[in-house]
Amino acid sequence: MSPFPSSAPRTQHWHHLRLTVEDGVATVTLARPEKLNALTFGAYADLRDLLAELARERSVRALVLGGEGRGFCSGGDVDEIIGATLAMDTAQLLDFNRMTGQVVRALRECPFPVIAAVHGVAAGAGAVLALAADFRIADPSARFAFLFTKVGLSGGDMGAAYLLPRVVGLGHATRLLMLGDPVRAPEAERIGLISEMTDEGRADVRAAELARRLADGPALAYAQTKALLTAELDMPLAAAVELDAATQALLMNGDDYAEFHAAFTEKRPPKWRGR
Amino acid sequence: MSPFPSSAPRTQHWHHLRLTVEDGVATVTLARPEKLNALTFGAYADLRDLLAELARERSVRALVLGGEGRGFCSGGDVDEIIGATLAMDTAQLLDFNRMTGQVVRALRECPFPVIAAVHGVAAGAGAVLALAADFRIADPSARFAFLFTKVGLSGGDMGAAYLLPRVVGLGHATRLLMLGDPVRAPEAERIGLISEMTDEGRADVRAAELARRLADGPALAYAQTKALLTAELDMPLAAAVELDAATQALLMNGDDYAEFHAAFTEKRPPKWRGR
Amino acid sequence: MSPFPSSAPRTQHWHHLRLTVEDGVATVTLARPEKLNALTFGAYADLRDLLAELARERSVRALVLGGEGRGFCSGGDVDEIIGATLAMDTAQLLDFNRMTGQVVRALRECPFPVIAAVHGVAAGAGAVLALAADFRIADPSARFAFLFTKVGLSGGDMGAAYLLPRVVGLGHATRLLMLGDPVRAPEAERIGLISEMTDEGRADVRAAELARRLADGPALAYAQTKALLTAELDMPLAAAVELDAATQALLMNGDDYAEFHAAFTEKRPPKWRGR
Repeated sequence: MSPFPSSAPRTQHWHHLRLTVEDGVATVTLARPEKLNALTFGAYADLRDLLAELARERSVRALVLGGEGRGFCSGGDVDEIIGATLAMDTAQLLDFNRMTGQVVRALRECPFPVIAAVHGVAAGAGAVLALAADFRIADPSARFAFLFTKVGLSGGDMGAAYLLPRVVGLGHATRLLMLGDPVRAPEAERIGLISEMTDEGRADVRAAELARRLADGPALAYAQTKALLTAELDMPLAAAVELDAATQALLMNGDDYAEFHAAFTEKRPPKWRGR
Repeated sequence: MSPFPSSAPRTQHWHHLRLTVEDGVATVTLARPEKLNALTFGAYADLRDLLAELARERSVRALVLGGEGRGFCSGGDVDEIIGATLAMDTAQLLDFNRMTGQVVRALRECPFPVIAAVHGVAAGAGAVLALAADFRIADPSARFAFLFTKVGLSGGDMGAAYLLPRVVGLGHATRLLMLGDPVRAPEAERIGLISEMTDEGRADVRAAELARRLADGPALAYAQTKALLTAELDMPLAAAVELDAATQALLMNGDDYAEFHAAFTEKRPPKWRGR
Repeated sequence: MSPFPSSAPRTQHWHHLRLTVEDGVATVTLARPEKLNALTFGAYADLRDLLAELARERSVRALVLGGEGRGFCSGGDVDEIIGATLAMDTAQLLDFNRMTGQVVRALRECPFPVIAAVHGVAAGAGAVLALAADFRIADPSARFAFLFTKVGLSGGDMGAAYLLPRVVGLGHATRLLMLGDPVRAPEAERIGLISEMTDEGRADVRAAELARRLADGPALAYAQTKALLTAELDMPLAAAVELDAATQALLMNGDDYAEFHAAFTEKRPPKWRGR
């Protein structure tokens, strides 16, 4: 499945989250509804390794990340994570915090768009998972809370102090990360934190529809768009323009660009191959 | 006219766009209304070389970019550009895509403000030309569509993946560049893509008024403001503050700063010299 | 008071501004109401040195910056500063402009949150002081004007061309810095320039309440949140995530994180120590 397979086998079962893959769309569900999908060490590690595996495969062209039950994700589990970290030494603490950051980097750097389907609470690490996605599709019950300072930690967790100012501007980001107060859906939409607002209870459905559209479309064009958006946040204009030129030259040799022109000429819809 | 003329003559006639210059205001009109001002190889090349020529002259102090007929610019011509690029080899494709990027760099780096007057469609490369301007003055008919993925290409074209997140934030930019769907004027205004909204059919008039104000004002101050806004997107705070200090020290030796103080003291309006 | 005192004595009296410190909250008031708190050379120098002194102490955990009388701050004094700079040589001009930039760097880099309480006019350097704060709490009378070009200078003054695009986006920032026109409170709130809008005449009270909350809370967590927000504007994602990991590992060894967990377990509010 992967164009360049190594000796590593595919993981047969992910114990700490639910995964389905259907015709190019991966759906990852945080499924501990009795704990509002609070994250455990295993859940972080599964997200990290799952994203790495999917990124090596050509088969997944869009990913939906959602939560089962009353909310999206309440963040790190108070008992299993906060309690446990209090007993860790310095090296263990660094290992843990690097792992959570790796999940965010994997979300930003994987070669397919990620859609967070948010209803109810997205708190702490849950808010950052949503923030690191390419799309945040939310219903009116969505509530984001970057509540790190409320537990005595830095609001800059898992890249939030990098990402949030680039999404909502430095003023709003400072307020949200410093105070940790909840942001309800209308404000989140107004400041640009929500990509698309749906009717009540429809976030999962709309996220699945968007993922289907992306998986059935010119997937390589989408993947490169994501890669350039991610990379060009960290590049000067001159370098960005050069990267764009090389990327378009590459894609102009691709199947989908020729297919667009043929379809346009023949006045029919294109049949995208994602290449 | 240029303070340091080389041997290169001025271009006498631009074949692929219409240019007028009147007392410091250049007006560039995309004038293929029967094709919604679709861009050709010649139009890109003319924009690139025209901006370079004007940047070498002291005479132009503001530039308006507009479109004749029903819209601003529908982007690269499907027949003349998409068709032709399908027959190009790798080096030619890179040459073409570098040229379009050079137009965007020229818009960002020329020493005078650029005002896009947008009505109707601004699609593909047309949307990026507007995005690269300093001001986007639009009427309610304006419709932006970064439709690159719809032809199988990357949404990061001509610096769009660099510029758009810095104008509207990463969330909106991802949605616009990934999906390529049209953004109508009210949404464009809400997310910060439009600088000033006018009444129907008044974008050209308001753009001309703003250009006149800029050309008659402290033009060197405006030029430096633009230069610093462009440069400081790519600089750390400490370097930006140092660049600001050197720039203000320079301008405090200039004519217009002294003229402001004289006029203020004499309770009369300043007579700006643009120096 | 400072953990590592040098031989330098504390300044006993600040002549060009009013300072009170009460249980961790410093309140700095620009107090030349008869001149709309126009800044003098002495006021800039006092702000620079005061922020440096407070940054060396552990005692201040939040700072409020406000203005006495009808407005926040009308910017550099036309007589005392503009007039005087016209008589300066190049080295003096650079010294002056570097000093104003140092005030902005001090506001961004000091290890406690800064809250600007804005009513009435915040113009020129006054607008940039507010912009450099972490929070802008404003009442409906607030009016921001980055009016540098109106005196013949660059809109990029004291880091404004760096900061403003990162707060309100490049489009709005270009318009505000290039034209220098006033932005009234409703627009300032809409574009993200205001952190919190209050009722008429209540900006000072709300700023004091927020400062109290911050000073009584997990102050080291707030200080690190500010430091990361400032630093990560200038860092790539991979480095930002690594900085976050090291910072959280550090704070997970701190008193407040353990106190949160103890309080949560005992179902009582945490007693923050700010460490």
